[in-house]
Amino acid sequence: SRSLNLAVIPGDGIGQEVVTEGLKVLSAVLPQDVKLETKEYDFGARRYHATGETLTDADAEALKQHDAILLGAIGDPSVPSGVLERGFLLKLRFLFDHHVNLRPSKLLPGVATPLAGQPEIDFVVVREGTEGPYTGNGGTIRKGTEHEVATEVSVNTAYGVERVVRDAFARAQARPRKKLALIHKNNVLAFAGHLWTNVFNKVAEEFPDVTTEYMHVDAATIYLVTQPERFDVIVTDNLFGDIITDLAAAVSGGIGVAASGNINPSGDFPSMFEPVHGSAPDIAGQGKADPTATVLSVALLLRHLGHDAEATRIEDAVSADLAERTGKPARSTSEIGDALAVRVAG
Amino acid sequence: SRSLNLAVIPGDGIGQEVVTEGLKVLSAVLPQDVKLETKEYDFGARRYHATGETLTDADAEALKQHDAILLGAIGDPSVPSGVLERGFLLKLRFLFDHHVNLRPSKLLPGVATPLAGQPEIDFVVVREGTEGPYTGNGGTIRKGTEHEVATEVSVNTAYGVERVVRDAFARAQARPRKKLALIHKNNVLAFAGHLWTNVFNKVAEEFPDVTTEYMHVDAATIYLVTQPERFDVIVTDNLFGDIITDLAAAVSGGIGVAASGNINPSGDFPSMFEPVHGSAPDIAGQGKADPTATVLSVALLLRHLGHDAEATRIEDAVSADLAERTGKPARSTSEIGDALAVRVAG
Ligand SMILES: CC(C)[C@H](C(=O)O)[C@@H](O)C(=O)O
Ligand SMILES: CC(C)[C@H](C(=O)O)[C@@H](O)C(=O)O
Repeated sequence: SRSLNLAVIPGDGIGQEVVTEGLKVLSAVLPQDVKLETKEYDFGARRYHATGETLTDADAEALKQHDAILLGAIGDPSVPSGVLERGFLLKLRFLFDHHVNLRPSKLLPGVATPLAGQPEIDFVVVREGTEGPYTGNGGTIRKGTEHEVATEVSVNTAYGVERVVRDAFARAQARPRKKLALIHKNNVLAFAGHLWTNVFNKVAEEFPDVTTEYMHVDAATIYLVTQPERFDVIVTDNLFGDIITDLAAAVSGGIGVAASGNINPSGDFPSMFEPVHGSAPDIAGQGKADPTATVLSVALLLRHLGHDAEATRIEDAVSADLAERTGKPARSTSEIGDALAVRVAG
Repeated sequence: SRSLNLAVIPGDGIGQEVVTEGLKVLSAVLPQDVKLETKEYDFGARRYHATGETLTDADAEALKQHDAILLGAIGDPSVPSGVLERGFLLKLRFLFDHHVNLRPSKLLPGVATPLAGQPEIDFVVVREGTEGPYTGNGGTIRKGTEHEVATEVSVNTAYGVERVVRDAFARAQARPRKKLALIHKNNVLAFAGHLWTNVFNKVAEEFPDVTTEYMHVDAATIYLVTQPERFDVIVTDNLFGDIITDLAAAVSGGIGVAASGNINPSGDFPSMFEPVHGSAPDIAGQGKADPTATVLSVALLLRHLGHDAEATRIEDAVSADLAERTGKPARSTSEIGDALAVRVAG
C-alpha cells in the first residue's frame, strides 16, 4: 500500500479555512490504497508574536520528512512588512531549493475576467525561485540620512538559470502547442539578460520541436492583456515572474482560482503548494474565502507526486463547478469544498 | 518676442513619420510671437551602422543648447539588443539627469481598451529615471561557461529617491483627487524598499492634504486591470515604472496614444519627450503609424516649458479627434496630423 505524508501549514487569515477544504478534496480524491497522513505546523503571525520565530532549523528538519507541503497563506498586518515573507516563505524556498515556481493560468468557462471578449487563456509560467533579486544580497550605508545608499543585487548563475530553463522546455514539449517564451529585460539588464538569453538559446537546441520567442517584460504586460492567448509556457526570472503571475492571475479569473507550486524537481526536498492569494485578514473567519485556488494547488501537488489521474479529476471538478457558478448565490468556503469533494469522489 | 529652440530626433522606423506630425501640430498651436527653431539630429540604427556611434560627447554638447528635445523612436532589429537602448536612450537620460520620467494614462472617450466595461482611467506615473536597476552596475564572471555568474545592482540613493518622490507629491497635490501611491516591493527588496518607503513617508509629512498608499508592484498589476480608476498619481522605481507604464498604456488605449517625458525639472539640461511606443519597423514608411502619442508628447513638452494653454489645446484636440474615430475608416499618419493641426489652430 502507498502513502502520502503531508505537512500542512494553515498559516494566517483565511489560510486555515481554505486548507481545510483543500484537505477535504484531497481525501475524497485519493484512492483507497493510498494512506494519507497529515501533520499540521504552526507558522505565521501567531507564532511570530508568541515566540519571535518564523522558521527554525528544527522546523525545517521536521518539514523535510514529508512528501510535500500544503500551505494556506502567511502574512498579517500586525507583523512588519517583510518579516514573514523573508523569514518564512522565501526562507523555505531557498532552504528547500524550490527553483521551479510553477504558476498555471487558465481562464475556465464561466469565470469572469477583467478583459473584454473572454479570450482563450491557457498558459503556465515557470518562474525561477531561488535567484535573481530575491537572494537578499545588497545593503545600505548611511541609513536614515540624506546620504543613504541602498543596493539590491540580482544574482544569476548558469547553473540556476539552466535548470529552470530546461524544466520549462520539457513542460513546453509536453503540451500540444509546444511554445516557450523567455521573458526578461535583456536590453537594459545586460549582464543577467545575456546569461538568460544565452542559456535559453543553448538549451533550445536540445528541444528543436519547441517554438521559442523572447519578449521584454514590459512588452509582456501588454500582451498579457491584449493577446493572452499567444502564451503557452513562459520562463522568467524570480522578480519578473512575481510581477507577471499576479497579472496573469488577474486576467485569468483572479487570485481566487490561482494555484502555485514551489517545486524542487529533484525530490531532494519536499515541494510546497499554495494558492497565489494572501491571507486576506479582512474576510478571515467568515467562511467567505474561495478555496478553489487551494484545491487547484492540491491538484498540482498530486501531479508532482505522480498521481496524475487524481490531479486531473480535481481540475475537471473545479472546471465543472466554476461553469455552474454564474447567476447562483454565493456559497461559503465549506460549501464550495463540499461540492468539489462530491464531484471528485463521484 | 519669445522663442522655442527644439532638438528633433526622428530616429528609426516610424520615428520620422510621427515626428513630422508632431512638429506640424506644434507649429499650428504656437502663438505668432513664439519663434520656433528646430534642428534635426541623426541618431539611431542608420548612424550606428555607418559610424559605430550612438551618442558622442559632441552630440551631447549640441543637444544641451536646446530648450527641449522631441524624439520619435530609436531601435531596429539590425542592431544587437541593448546597443541603442543603453548607448543612446539611457545614456541621454543619465547625462541629462532626466530623473522624472512622466507617463500619463488617460482613457479618452471613444478609445478602445482591452478591459471590459470601459473603466475611468486618469492617472500619471512618475517613474524615477536615473537610478535603480538601470545604472548598468553589475557584472559577469566566467562568461559563457557553466559556472557563469551575472549580477545586476540596483542603486538607490536618498538624494535620487527624495527628489522624484517630492516631484510626485507636488503633482498629486495639484490634481483634484490629490492621491499618491508608492509602488515597490519592499517586503522582498528590503534595502531599497526601506529607503523608498522611509523617504516617501517623510516627504508625505510636508503634503498633509495628499492621501497616500503603498502597494507592492505585483498587486499593482492586478489593480491596474481590475480597478484602474483607483489610481491618481503613482511614484515608483525605474524598473517597476518601466513595467507598469507599458501595462498602463495597454489598458488606457494602447501605445498608439501613450506619451512620455524624460524630465529634468531643474532645467539644467533640456528635457526629452517621446511616445512610449518603439520604432515599429514592420509598418515604417507606410503612413500607417498613429502620430497621436507623439502629438501628446508635444503637449507634455509645451507644458514643461510653461506653454500651458497650448498644451491643453493639443490635449483637447486629441480628445475630440479620438472621440470621432469610432466607425470611421482608418486615416494615414499625415491625415491624423493634419486633422489635429486644424483643430489646434481653430
Ligand atoms: C509574499 C511574497 C514574498 C511572494 C513573492 O514575492 O514571491 C508573493 O508575492 C508570491 O508571489 O509568492
Ligand atoms: C527602450 C528601453 C531602454 C526603455 C526602458 O526600459 O526604459 C523603454 O522600455 C521605455 O520604457 O522607455
